[in-house]
Amino acid sequence: MTTTSVTSRRLLPADPATRRIAERLYQLIADLPILSPHGHVDPGILATDRPFRDPATLLIRDDHYVTRLLHADGVDLASLAIGQGEISESEARRIWRIFCDRWHLFAGTASGYWLRSTLQDVFGVEQLPGDADPDALFDALSESLAAADMRPRALLERFDIEVLATTDDPLDTLEPHRILAADPGVRTVVRPTFRPDAYLDPTAAGWGDRVERLIDSVDQNGYEGYLEGLRASRRRFIEHGATSADFGVFTADTAEIDPSSAAALFDRARRGELSATEARAFRAHMLFESARMSTEDGLVMTIHAGVFRNHHTPTFTGYGPDRGHDIPVATTFVEPLRPLLQRFGTARGFHLILFTVDETTFSRELAPLAGFYPSVFIGAPWWFLDAPDSAARFRAATVETAGFYRGSGFIDDTRAFLSIPARHDMARRTDAGYLARLVVEERLSIGEAERIAVDLHSAIPRRAFKL
Amino acid sequence: MTTTSVTSRRLLPADPATRRIAERLYQLIADLPILSPHGHVDPGILATDRPFRDPATLLIRDDHYVTRLLHADGVDLASLAIGQGEISESEARRIWRIFCDRWHLFAGTASGYWLRSTLQDVFGVEQLPGDADPDALFDALSESLAAADMRPRALLERFDIEVLATTDDPLDTLEPHRILAADPGVRTVVRPTFRPDAYLDPTAAGWGDRVERLIDSVDQNGYEGYLEGLRASRRRFIEHGATSADFGVFTADTAEIDPSSAAALFDRARRGELSATEARAFRAHMLFESARMSTEDGLVMTIHAGVFRNHHTPTFTGYGPDRGHDIPVATTFVEPLRPLLQRFGTARGFHLILFTVDETTFSRELAPLAGFYPSVFIGAPWWFLDAPDSAARFRAATVETAGFYRGSGFIDDTRAFLSIPARHDMARRTDAGYLARLVVEERLSIGEAERIAVDLHSAIPRRAFKL
Amino acid sequence: MTTTSVTSRRLLPADPATRRIAERLYQLIADLPILSPHGHVDPGILATDRPFRDPATLLIRDDHYVTRLLHADGVDLASLAIGQGEISESEARRIWRIFCDRWHLFAGTASGYWLRSTLQDVFGVEQLPGDADPDALFDALSESLAAADMRPRALLERFDIEVLATTDDPLDTLEPHRILAADPGVRTVVRPTFRPDAYLDPTAAGWGDRVERLIDSVDQNGYEGYLEGLRASRRRFIEHGATSADFGVFTADTAEIDPSSAAALFDRARRGELSATEARAFRAHMLFESARMSTEDGLVMTIHAGVFRNHHTPTFTGYGPDRGHDIPVATTFVEPLRPLLQRFGTARGFHLILFTVDETTFSRELAPLAGFYPSVFIGAPWWFLDAPDSAARFRAATVETAGFYRGSGFIDDTRAFLSIPARHDMARRTDAGYLARLVVEERLSIGEAERIAVDLHSAIPRRAFKL
Repeated sequence: MTTTSVTSRRLLPADPATRRIAERLYQLIADLPILSPHGHVDPGILATDRPFRDPATLLIRDDHYVTRLLHADGVDLASLAIGQGEISESEARRIWRIFCDRWHLFAGTASGYWLRSTLQDVFGVEQLPGDADPDALFDALSESLAAADMRPRALLERFDIEVLATTDDPLDTLEPHRILAADPGVRTVVRPTFRPDAYLDPTAAGWGDRVERLIDSVDQNGYEGYLEGLRASRRRFIEHGATSADFGVFTADTAEIDPSSAAALFDRARRGELSATEARAFRAHMLFESARMSTEDGLVMTIHAGVFRNHHTPTFTGYGPDRGHDIPVATTFVEPLRPLLQRFGTARGFHLILFTVDETTFSRELAPLAGFYPSVFIGAPWWFLDAPDSAARFRAATVETAGFYRGSGFIDDTRAFLSIPARHDMARRTDAGYLARLVVEERLSIGEAERIAVDLHSAIPRRAFKL
Repeated sequence: MTTTSVTSRRLLPADPATRRIAERLYQLIADLPILSPHGHVDPGILATDRPFRDPATLLIRDDHYVTRLLHADGVDLASLAIGQGEISESEARRIWRIFCDRWHLFAGTASGYWLRSTLQDVFGVEQLPGDADPDALFDALSESLAAADMRPRALLERFDIEVLATTDDPLDTLEPHRILAADPGVRTVVRPTFRPDAYLDPTAAGWGDRVERLIDSVDQNGYEGYLEGLRASRRRFIEHGATSADFGVFTADTAEIDPSSAAALFDRARRGELSATEARAFRAHMLFESARMSTEDGLVMTIHAGVFRNHHTPTFTGYGPDRGHDIPVATTFVEPLRPLLQRFGTARGFHLILFTVDETTFSRELAPLAGFYPSVFIGAPWWFLDAPDSAARFRAATVETAGFYRGSGFIDDTRAFLSIPARHDMARRTDAGYLARLVVEERLSIGEAERIAVDLHSAIPRRAFKL
Repeated sequence: MTTTSVTSRRLLPADPATRRIAERLYQLIADLPILSPHGHVDPGILATDRPFRDPATLLIRDDHYVTRLLHADGVDLASLAIGQGEISESEARRIWRIFCDRWHLFAGTASGYWLRSTLQDVFGVEQLPGDADPDALFDALSESLAAADMRPRALLERFDIEVLATTDDPLDTLEPHRILAADPGVRTVVRPTFRPDAYLDPTAAGWGDRVERLIDSVDQNGYEGYLEGLRASRRRFIEHGATSADFGVFTADTAEIDPSSAAALFDRARRGELSATEARAFRAHMLFESARMSTEDGLVMTIHAGVFRNHHTPTFTGYGPDRGHDIPVATTFVEPLRPLLQRFGTARGFHLILFTVDETTFSRELAPLAGFYPSVFIGAPWWFLDAPDSAARFRAATVETAGFYRGSGFIDDTRAFLSIPARHDMARRTDAGYLARLVVEERLSIGEAERIAVDLHSAIPRRAFKL
């Protein structure tokens, strides 16, 4: 990973004695290759390796963590060309100016940090949006983007990404993954991730059609065909390099329902006859069944729980999903996951990584669960919590109960390809700072801290995600 | 604002390099005029400008944040003359001695901090209650209070308060506000705040009578007269300078009920026929309707949610409300506010400021909501959270998701007039410390930090509260 | 207390100016005698004073905070000889090696901290498990354990434990307590604690038999005999030196049920006829009745709420309780405790100490409740939260609202006798660090900080627990 100078004090502790130790630890890990075992980069951009379009589309328009803060400042999503396909250069310049005028809104935010790092470390610009002339900056960035060394595969190499996982639909062809795997010039292992949410929730729009196509892909019918369709798709993902299956759920409810009752629910779901309660029960059952499949085929199970998706209906209706109004809610794991853990919690080889945006669960639930169940790993700070202060709180909330070795290791979980190095660098710097404090407080020896620093960014994610 | 020496290290970071930056930032904002857009000072004391009574009544007896800690130590509220009107000097001295004997109970508390600042910075005393002879201190403070420069209006000037908002009943005459506005000698703008809780909750004692008087104030009858009474009162508040309407609620539930059903609930409420569930629905509907009124007349809507009022019935029965046993409860905003935000969340000019005493909502709900909805602003740390460590947690929990510009700016929310400068000074110092850390960690440039420091205590509250 | 060198910087703040003050405060309290008013040491080991067995049994096998992290790493409980009685030396050596191989799992954890302190400060070893040869270390520790100065009573003296409370069944003979009290050579006051959970919850296994024996111990029958049995047992505990009664509950629900209805519930409970809802109501009622008994006999009431016990049924079935899978859940006190506090919250002499493993309640509920009710004290950070970073969060979350004098003082709450000095030393160091920060930030004078430091580890627990 070659990003910011390793001599920068960025994100390191203020106290000089602590900082010296943090710098020593950071230097050990600054250049480790990037492991990105969970994220949302479109594999198509890597397979085709076309140059990126203009900077406004790349950095603003298509990043809803950026557009949500512009929207909060009163900028209409329409004026940002959200959902409008390719835009003209003049349109892109207009959007770029809207953004530059509001650069101060991003001060202190994670998104602002990724943007700044991307501009400084990937593009090498000196003046930031708040100081630079917007048009001159747009021109400079556009020129950079046209160069061969800013093509997606060139960046993959430059970022030193050893593993990059994408997130994919069960019926996806995985053709980009095949192309990348077959190309000896691509040294990064690009792995698909099985993400079946839209097939497990009977209330999701299009569930019936999707399930029908899934069943059509195998020889069996009905509920058995549905389960076999999922299993077959998982096998196909594994053949293409997948090591994990991901589940985005509102609650972490799980339930064991006997096969004939489950089949009956499934049949009624296809006829649109489930009550809301029955639909919830079916979802909970399918999360349980997905754990069972993981114990059979070895895919790591990751759960991202506790988000109210598409909170503002007019925005969802007008612009579709992923527009910045998915809002976290209070979450609990202890009782909802219990049916699953009773059955599979100590199953050999089963890995269950739990992600949350409700920080209260870190010390209360996730660290205690991971401190007992060999299957449970604490997911890295996710999403809004993937930021320096939140990451520090995460360590302080989990390590005292579960240590360093029950976490998943850092994941970037991003669509924003260019921000990947900055995100991993942030995690390495904040980990170095946290470990340095423990050394200063005589809670770890420097030797222990060195081993842990390296493990956190190598052995730990390799083991948790079975890389 | 002329309070503590700007060279004091009070509340600034310990690390020398960080403190130097914090001092530079603090010096920029230490003397900005005070904006107090939400609070509970009695406007009558300013209109009449009578000298304050003795120090025990002023600083102890009438401040239930102080008396609650005495009560927790076993002091009966009766022996503090709670609810007994004016007290004799010997009674005041007795209460003062009770307080001085227990000064150590306040060490480290926000109340202790306000008291110490008031004594040192407003009264200029050198020995604090724990060290001084209680009677000598009582005498010195009494002498100070008799002087002309300690009269309420003189302090208003000395504190350099540019705007002071009070909190008022919809049927209040607002006569003190008229007097103060008409007096060219008063440079502070004293604004009323519309606080209709007792008119919106059919289960509140006296609701029926209050509503009847409200309807009598307009030409219409029934539910329409009720809504028009509220609207007319809001207009009258706006004419007297109000820019906001405040709502203190147990939950943030909102609901849209069609007008005829709402009218039917209202009629049955007046006959005392509502079930608890119906009363809750009516309250939720009136919070929704209040948002609609704000989109029409422009009053900023502030919600203070999640407090169990008057937890100990024997105390409430014996001494009335505001006796220190209002206790926070777990709070959520995401689902309860959704009906309101679906309808008005992106309405132009609508401002909704959310205050909480459940810190868990800062990173989980408030920052994400304010990071999308242009109407939503994150309320400053409220009440028990209005203290240095809590304020630091607030910034660390919200900035990474929503930046600095989606907050309301600091509000003091106090009845304790003499503590106002100390409270704003605390906020300025803790903000300077937080920003300095971000500069040291290379997350902000010093120029960015300077701009944000000034905006936090000027442009941001002016915009959020439409001052 | 004679543990680590008072010149060690262990757990003290990194900033040099803050650390100097922290060291000064720590030196004041480092050698205060230990008050341990709540814990789980087996009084039998003190009464018999037999040498401890091998180091693996003492430090690993019998400490489920240690075995849970081994289990999480994939070590079967069976291979740790859990629940197998005395083990051979070769078995002990095997378990010791399993532990030494996994020493890195404990880095940064509270358990790792206690183990390291125990090894270094109690045994005086120089090389820790990660560095030492496991067999040589086993031999060295075994040799130490055989020495007279490592016998339980010798350690009691060496640790300078002034008071040690155990936790005991209402029908326990309390014979060890009698033996210890009668022996003039034992200077520590070993007090029993009344723990009646298994007698108050009709759904607990064996409740009927236990209640029958309780009733048999007094002259009355039925519900009256049950209440009188509890009262008589409490009296017996008080005669043996008890000052508190402890309640471990899933929720803090309390309810006042009239005596005849309660008697009817009790009779039906004995016939096994209660519904789940009725059983919950009866438990809530008995928590209420227990508070009433405390107002009568003066026993301090301590509540440990909010834990899902024995989460993994196969482990519970195979190995019994206390195997590391008790997991905290979201907890609330405000509404559940209200019936109890309405009735007894201001009763003279009643002490109610509230312990939680849900940190969110510290600032939201516990500090506000303790800041009003003279009976309520905030329990020290309990269990998973009994660790340096958690302890720092606890102070920062409670002091600003409730000060220092509404807390219980530190309790170690441990079965691991040898870890007691390390635990109290941790609390003293973190308190010194917190107070030092407040001095540096000019929130406390050094004189105030010195008084508070001493009170936190002497006057405050003496008062809260009526020692």
